[in-house]
Amino acid sequence: MARNAFYAQSGGVTAVINASAAGVIETARKHKKHIGKVYAGRNGILGALTEDLIDTSRESAANIRALKSTPGGAFGSARYKLKGVEKGGHEYERLIEVFRAHDIGYFFYNGGNDSADTCLKVSRISETLGYPIVAVHVPKTVDNDLPITDTCPGFGSVAKYVATSMMEAVLDVESMARTSTKVFILEVMGRHAGWITAATGLASRRAGEGPHILLFPEVPWNEEAFLARVDEAVKKYGYCAIGASEGLQDASGRFLSESGLKDAFGHAQLGGVAPMLANLVQSKLKLKQHWAVADYLQRAARHIASKADLDQSYAVGKAAVELAVKGMNSVMPTIVRTSSRPYRWRIGVAKLSDVANVEKKMPRDFITPDGFHITQKCRNYLQPLIAGEAFPPFEGGLPKYVRLKNVPVRKKTGEYRP
Amino acid sequence: MARNAFYAQSGGVTAVINASAAGVIETARKHKKHIGKVYAGRNGILGALTEDLIDTSRESAANIRALKSTPGGAFGSARYKLKGVEKGGHEYERLIEVFRAHDIGYFFYNGGNDSADTCLKVSRISETLGYPIVAVHVPKTVDNDLPITDTCPGFGSVAKYVATSMMEAVLDVESMARTSTKVFILEVMGRHAGWITAATGLASRRAGEGPHILLFPEVPWNEEAFLARVDEAVKKYGYCAIGASEGLQDASGRFLSESGLKDAFGHAQLGGVAPMLANLVQSKLKLKQHWAVADYLQRAARHIASKADLDQSYAVGKAAVELAVKGMNSVMPTIVRTSSRPYRWRIGVAKLSDVANVEKKMPRDFITPDGFHITQKCRNYLQPLIAGEAFPPFEGGLPKYVRLKNVPVRKKTGEYRP
Repeated sequence: MARNAFYAQSGGVTAVINASAAGVIETARKHKKHIGKVYAGRNGILGALTEDLIDTSRESAANIRALKSTPGGAFGSARYKLKGVEKGGHEYERLIEVFRAHDIGYFFYNGGNDSADTCLKVSRISETLGYPIVAVHVPKTVDNDLPITDTCPGFGSVAKYVATSMMEAVLDVESMARTSTKVFILEVMGRHAGWITAATGLASRRAGEGPHILLFPEVPWNEEAFLARVDEAVKKYGYCAIGASEGLQDASGRFLSESGLKDAFGHAQLGGVAPMLANLVQSKLKLKQHWAVADYLQRAARHIASKADLDQSYAVGKAAVELAVKGMNSVMPTIVRTSSRPYRWRIGVAKLSDVANVEKKMPRDFITPDGFHITQKCRNYLQPLIAGEAFPPFEGGLPKYVRLKNVPVRKKTGEYRP
Repeated sequence: MARNAFYAQSGGVTAVINASAAGVIETARKHKKHIGKVYAGRNGILGALTEDLIDTSRESAANIRALKSTPGGAFGSARYKLKGVEKGGHEYERLIEVFRAHDIGYFFYNGGNDSADTCLKVSRISETLGYPIVAVHVPKTVDNDLPITDTCPGFGSVAKYVATSMMEAVLDVESMARTSTKVFILEVMGRHAGWITAATGLASRRAGEGPHILLFPEVPWNEEAFLARVDEAVKKYGYCAIGASEGLQDASGRFLSESGLKDAFGHAQLGGVAPMLANLVQSKLKLKQHWAVADYLQRAARHIASKADLDQSYAVGKAAVELAVKGMNSVMPTIVRTSSRPYRWRIGVAKLSDVANVEKKMPRDFITPDGFHITQKCRNYLQPLIAGEAFPPFEGGLPKYVRLKNVPVRKKTGEYRP
């Protein structure tokens, strides 16, 4: 007998998380023997707790297909950690109440590290709370820090965006440097792992071409070494371009962005590593500088998404359903790289207990000995992940992104306030 | 008898200034009866002063064609104001020395407001200093603030980039707002004119869709009105997205970014309107915020250039040569809009004396009465400028941008230090 499925997006969204949603929904529609309807949580797991479910069967095939070219979270995502009994909560019990009311037998959770842990706990509900459910995690994180999988869906598109943006900014700065800006700093995401910072390095493909300096969260910040390197690049190449992680920290582990200073309004200065570095360069080296902070632009940039990443994002959604209908509980589809040149990959499977709460940092041999750039080994790893273009359709000069109807499912349980 | 031409890029570069260069060079190659070689100034006008000329005839047709898909300034640009006798300099005399040595009879200057003034002065050299030359200005500025021309080559591509980026960030914030970021601020260029800020507003196409607030340099900053509007948007739509000009100023004309504060290193804080606004929102409204500063990314983003802008950038380069060979001195080709729906334009001609040092700000009826958004009239103006895609070729996941050989012309005059 077919049972319904629940799908939710969790944590920071990406340019291609909706492609995973499309993979789940389109594949579920092909497994009617096992899966009835796919209900999506409005605002992620909160939608399950508050019984705010979206009936994806009310969306046309064209709209679901259009999710593949739409960034952000089409059903809403959430930063929310379920409170289990150990935290004095009964939110897993509440999940069961809602799942039972809607005959939900499949749980697809689309997220990163924290979400994998939640998904693991849900996968144990059969054992711990006696409600039969198959839970499969659908990997997603721009941080690229999930273990086992070769890469994380969402990362390749950010990587392509920051590498392209850096390459373009470098051409700009290089052509102005004789009389104007000499130092350019691009701040990118990745609070604990330097994968995105590493990707900015792909813009430098021959000697002397920027970025000349990468600042990883894995490498303790050293002001003197940094300034010396900037000075050297400007003298040698006429300019210096820098890719900097938002998570840059000093030797004691303090984030550079936690300055403890007040701004013009007298409020705590909230950071931005790029402006701090820029001020440092300006005052110590007397060099004209410019800086950019990409922030959400980088993880929402569907217009320059990686085809490889898009394909993989869809594939993990599809695979999650195929694993679930086989009864594989407590697992996560992974990307297995079988060859770098030519790039070949297939879907693998990892146990959630091996994934949850494990963080994959940059290997030391992906960073040059001086700590300021990426190695050839790192390039070989990154390059295939940004390969291929997958432009969205355009209309009137702007990308044509879909907005779903997001029709609510009639509530069957009482009110619940999380 | 054919004489040689000099071409230089001036001021901040754009995603499509090289398309104008291609227009000049390709068209000059078709007018061999009038124009011998096109020499480009290395680093703009500095290349003329220091006799650092680039022989563009040494570049293949394919490379010149590839300029159409390459951002930045292929020959180097400069922020440099020629010192005439009134400033105690003789740099116009030095120009003539170099031009005479290389039989340069045509001067093509590719820039914005300041450059138009320089080009005007060069155009008068025949009269003032007795050296026969035809000078034509090739318009370019992302600020869109040149008079007479309907738009400025370079602007449409920035407009498309910021509108696309805002649209993508809005989808991101919207999907996270329930439990996370409620306010997002994108800072864009345009120190004196709000054209680029206005373009971020194109992302909002239906009621309630972000950006909800635009902050123009033309509208004096008012903290209370701003905070009230943010609060209202968050209550009504769940989030608030804001497009802010780097040139935002208070009623007394003081730039908000000139905070007079010190940073963590004890140095003067150099600004960033977005982080200041974000701090204000966080502290006064207690709302979680994120902010981005696009900086050079916006004006170098050839990967998402506007087809209309690209075509116009090429067309003004081509027209400049056609005007010059007809002997039209001291002019600038313009874009004349003949229809908005469907969008139609043709090339016109303006006298440089009408262009130099005139700044075109946003008309008041392009801004809503409350000062916080754009009107339909403004949308009708902006929309055609971002129309059409013109993706560059890609290779290995990144745009394939050309680097010219930039072969120097043998020097014939003595050394000169500007």
